[in-house]
Amino acid sequence: MAAQATKVLQSGCNKAAKVGFIGLGNMGGHMAKNLLKKGYPLVVYDVSKDNLNTLKEAGAEVAGSPAEVASGVTKVVSMLPESSHVKQVTVKSGSLLMDCSTIDPSVSQVMASLAAEKGVTFVDAPVSGGVNAARDGILTFMVGGPEDGYEAASEYLSCMGKNVVHCGAVGTGQAAKICNNMLLGISMIGVSETMNLGIKLGLDPKMLAKILNMSSGRCWSSEVYNPCPGVLDGVPSSNNYKGGFGAALMTKDLGLAQSASTSTKSPTPLGSMAHQMYRIMTNHGYGEKDFSSVFKFLQEQEGKK
Amino acid sequence: MAAQATKVLQSGCNKAAKVGFIGLGNMGGHMAKNLLKKGYPLVVYDVSKDNLNTLKEAGAEVAGSPAEVASGVTKVVSMLPESSHVKQVTVKSGSLLMDCSTIDPSVSQVMASLAAEKGVTFVDAPVSGGVNAARDGILTFMVGGPEDGYEAASEYLSCMGKNVVHCGAVGTGQAAKICNNMLLGISMIGVSETMNLGIKLGLDPKMLAKILNMSSGRCWSSEVYNPCPGVLDGVPSSNNYKGGFGAALMTKDLGLAQSASTSTKSPTPLGSMAHQMYRIMTNHGYGEKDFSSVFKFLQEQEGKK
Amino acid sequence: MAAQATKVLQSGCNKAAKVGFIGLGNMGGHMAKNLLKKGYPLVVYDVSKDNLNTLKEAGAEVAGSPAEVASGVTKVVSMLPESSHVKQVTVKSGSLLMDCSTIDPSVSQVMASLAAEKGVTFVDAPVSGGVNAARDGILTFMVGGPEDGYEAASEYLSCMGKNVVHCGAVGTGQAAKICNNMLLGISMIGVSETMNLGIKLGLDPKMLAKILNMSSGRCWSSEVYNPCPGVLDGVPSSNNYKGGFGAALMTKDLGLAQSASTSTKSPTPLGSMAHQMYRIMTNHGYGEKDFSSVFKFLQEQEGKK
Amino acid sequence: MAAQATKVLQSGCNKAAKVGFIGLGNMGGHMAKNLLKKGYPLVVYDVSKDNLNTLKEAGAEVAGSPAEVASGVTKVVSMLPESSHVKQVTVKSGSLLMDCSTIDPSVSQVMASLAAEKGVTFVDAPVSGGVNAARDGILTFMVGGPEDGYEAASEYLSCMGKNVVHCGAVGTGQAAKICNNMLLGISMIGVSETMNLGIKLGLDPKMLAKILNMSSGRCWSSEVYNPCPGVLDGVPSSNNYKGGFGAALMTKDLGLAQSASTSTKSPTPLGSMAHQMYRIMTNHGYGEKDFSSVFKFLQEQEGKK
Repeated sequence: MAAQATKVLQSGCNKAAKVGFIGLGNMGGHMAKNLLKKGYPLVVYDVSKDNLNTLKEAGAEVAGSPAEVASGVTKVVSMLPESSHVKQVTVKSGSLLMDCSTIDPSVSQVMASLAAEKGVTFVDAPVSGGVNAARDGILTFMVGGPEDGYEAASEYLSCMGKNVVHCGAVGTGQAAKICNNMLLGISMIGVSETMNLGIKLGLDPKMLAKILNMSSGRCWSSEVYNPCPGVLDGVPSSNNYKGGFGAALMTKDLGLAQSASTSTKSPTPLGSMAHQMYRIMTNHGYGEKDFSSVFKFLQEQEGKK
Repeated sequence: MAAQATKVLQSGCNKAAKVGFIGLGNMGGHMAKNLLKKGYPLVVYDVSKDNLNTLKEAGAEVAGSPAEVASGVTKVVSMLPESSHVKQVTVKSGSLLMDCSTIDPSVSQVMASLAAEKGVTFVDAPVSGGVNAARDGILTFMVGGPEDGYEAASEYLSCMGKNVVHCGAVGTGQAAKICNNMLLGISMIGVSETMNLGIKLGLDPKMLAKILNMSSGRCWSSEVYNPCPGVLDGVPSSNNYKGGFGAALMTKDLGLAQSASTSTKSPTPLGSMAHQMYRIMTNHGYGEKDFSSVFKFLQEQEGKK
Repeated sequence: MAAQATKVLQSGCNKAAKVGFIGLGNMGGHMAKNLLKKGYPLVVYDVSKDNLNTLKEAGAEVAGSPAEVASGVTKVVSMLPESSHVKQVTVKSGSLLMDCSTIDPSVSQVMASLAAEKGVTFVDAPVSGGVNAARDGILTFMVGGPEDGYEAASEYLSCMGKNVVHCGAVGTGQAAKICNNMLLGISMIGVSETMNLGIKLGLDPKMLAKILNMSSGRCWSSEVYNPCPGVLDGVPSSNNYKGGFGAALMTKDLGLAQSASTSTKSPTPLGSMAHQMYRIMTNHGYGEKDFSSVFKFLQEQEGKK
Repeated sequence: MAAQATKVLQSGCNKAAKVGFIGLGNMGGHMAKNLLKKGYPLVVYDVSKDNLNTLKEAGAEVAGSPAEVASGVTKVVSMLPESSHVKQVTVKSGSLLMDCSTIDPSVSQVMASLAAEKGVTFVDAPVSGGVNAARDGILTFMVGGPEDGYEAASEYLSCMGKNVVHCGAVGTGQAAKICNNMLLGISMIGVSETMNLGIKLGLDPKMLAKILNMSSGRCWSSEVYNPCPGVLDGVPSSNNYKGGFGAALMTKDLGLAQSASTSTKSPTPLGSMAHQMYRIMTNHGYGEKDFSSVFKFLQEQEGKK
């Protein structure tokens, strides 16, 4: 897959067709700048004046509405917070609409149907990787859509990421995204429970992490992003859980996973419990902290004994 | 750690002091044979005549009781199913007792105290790795006990495994073991829920596994031991969940984790839910199947719609 | 509240305006017959010919579509399985639409908005009580809508039930229904776990039920609908869990509760876990059995040991 | 049962044999005073000097140790916090030992075996009802033990409570107690989730409580002890969760339920999750608040948004 994406990358960038970009938040702002850097002229929109100004300074043309963005281009990238925002995006007949938002897969499917009626190609292309990966252009895009839609989108997505994976029909990009994040959300709580229990049983945290990582408990959350302060450098847990992926955003993604589970009648006992734990954390003031702060949330709170 | 163990391995094997071995089941039988192969004369005991005969044929001396084993040696290895069996093992003053059973860490601590009163050195040394790893002598031992106990035990344990890790004071070997298995039990259910959901959402199972394994959902259960039939060769899920680590044994280990959580007042929401899921599976006839059969348990049962 | 409903009942029934009724399933069929018995001429529709014939024999006029039902009346009752069916019901300007289906409260709110634009009064009026209560006309209706809508609807609803409760604005009928059923679903699993544990600890089931019912564990599921066979007569648990409220229907209602929890950001750890348990049961062939069969599902299955 | 207890009460009190009492905490202090009031001379022990002085002032004789208590009497009541304390109580041959502590049923069974060897009759007799019920002498005792032990104990227990229920063999008193409290702990969280969700969906809390209490969601926690402030007067939720039964004590009881579930291989998915929730609450400073404060814990914390 990476090889395929790389091929597209080499042949695809540096062309000059103007591209529309809607949604310039923490992620979208960096993504748009990377498209600019690769030589694509941009016309952009965001509800925030500040975000618009940042892109204007970087060389983008600013539009007054999503409709104005869409009126002048045939390629549109959207990066929006919720299904309700994505539903409002409309583009010209004959366009390619690449939606990088994380939303309900069934909404992507409805979008694609409506798009097809108007002669528009729609692909869902949510991303893996955080703000730093967006800035550095090393995101992974999980793309759902027809083969030709995937190929057309790859030209643009490969300018903003290092992997552009074709997952299958429309909606499967979202499906892959929420599946990964559900498993990530579960694993992180699992590692947090385990580290906390092990420490209470007398194990040194670094020793315990080493044992897990050479054993069958090993996972990304224990190896690369350990939630226990002091085990790894350069991760949110060693910086008071600042930066990273907020517990409120994880709660949102696990809510999407729960909707998908319910509509497909798939049991997800740990996925649902993980959802509830991050929601409770968010209600207790952890929403803006990195989701690995569940380690801290589970610990006995010294001042509150 | 591995280097340290390797050093012990080279200097330690091929000596001739007779060793006692109590508990010759699926794991213990292989472990005892590996000690024999390394040149240690053995005196052994098991409740099963068959298990005793197998070891007799391999060259071991057979005793009529655990006490008879202990009467003739100063090094004893035990590999028993439950705390209650371990409590019945007694050895001579001045002996080294290496308990490889997976039991409650607090029982290990009580055993060590009682041992110390009698001038016996006790280490807990539970293993990671299954029956095949026991047969091939590539287990990992997680050792809890004083430094000199660890060093003395390493001579014998390194003949049966490739890693002998010193985890800390008595009980920390058990702690590391149950921590790892709790996280493993959680991860496996998480991967199973995720694979089942993804398939219902239209993703190809191999494609989904590939995406997880290049993303933050990656874990041992998705990469090395995927529970979805057909994703990996040579794992229990591709052999109707035969072999491997039975759901009933996982239930037992997660029960130990729950006891430890309760006694140390550590919250383990997903660990407790995983425990309950494996228990329900066991009650429904999955006890002897590999624990990765939770994937099958969560699936909609076709014949039962 | 009951008094108010009774008053409406006495003054309201036996009038002659023709009423439309859409959805004649297990519940709706009985409800429609009760309206007929009270003297209301009916025009009815259902997808099933059999259901239509049953009502025809009882004296109702049969229509060929929901639209045909609506064309001739200004009062319409609907009793349908899913939100998607309710969304398709349209009535004439100036009509009163009483939706007795159990659906997402937010769908009821959307329906009410659309209705208001057309000069239609919409109330949500889901029911509590099963098939027998529908047959006997002793349902409880939980009504959401404006005061005048509630009053107008009470004329008809009181012919089919003994309690017609005004819960508040549109959607609150549904809210009350799914809140009650979420708590019921949790309590029933709680009682089942408790009865099973107590029996395993040596308690006689009837004795245990008696103790719970005189203590703080007391609930409807322990007192009136005990899930342990032999404790009470005349309940599904003493009839091999036949009849009653199927686990699949409970799963649907708890799915609505989960959607509502997610959209209102309300944590429901036990509600979500109950949802998952009934879903797993349904996947294992318990969907048509009464939801109290969770007692049986949790028990160790003798033939499967 | 109540009738039987009442009979015992009338015939039993006002006799003059001296009784030993060990453990004079919040509950035990009141219970001992009630025995004194009924005319029984007491010899008492507690680790706290203050508690001893209170009983001395009330007329009891003070001993310097549990052994000193036991040396002078043949009837002993114990009311202690943990299994470890109960294990230390020894009485003279021929005595009756009534243990009112809430401990692991298997510990009660071990105590009874050891007692039988010494010619001592042991009954477990944990209580239902809080500090006020202890003060007012209206506790319920759940008694496990042989018939004659139950009858002998009833003389004394009926002086401290209004119901003395014979549950079965030794340990069944504890079993009944932890079964009830497990169900109570589950129900209270269920009611709290439901009330919080309903309010967020627009329902008035009193209206919602009324609907639940006339429907199948009804339980002691919704009717008698509603956790939502303002629904009922005179309960902890209307007094900032002061008084009542602390979350830390509920956590302890649910831990006993979990141990019993594990040892009897009984699945308790909601029981285990309830245990975890109260543990997390306790870690976050709710340990001393009434356990119904789970309602507050689940709510969105305004200051922390």
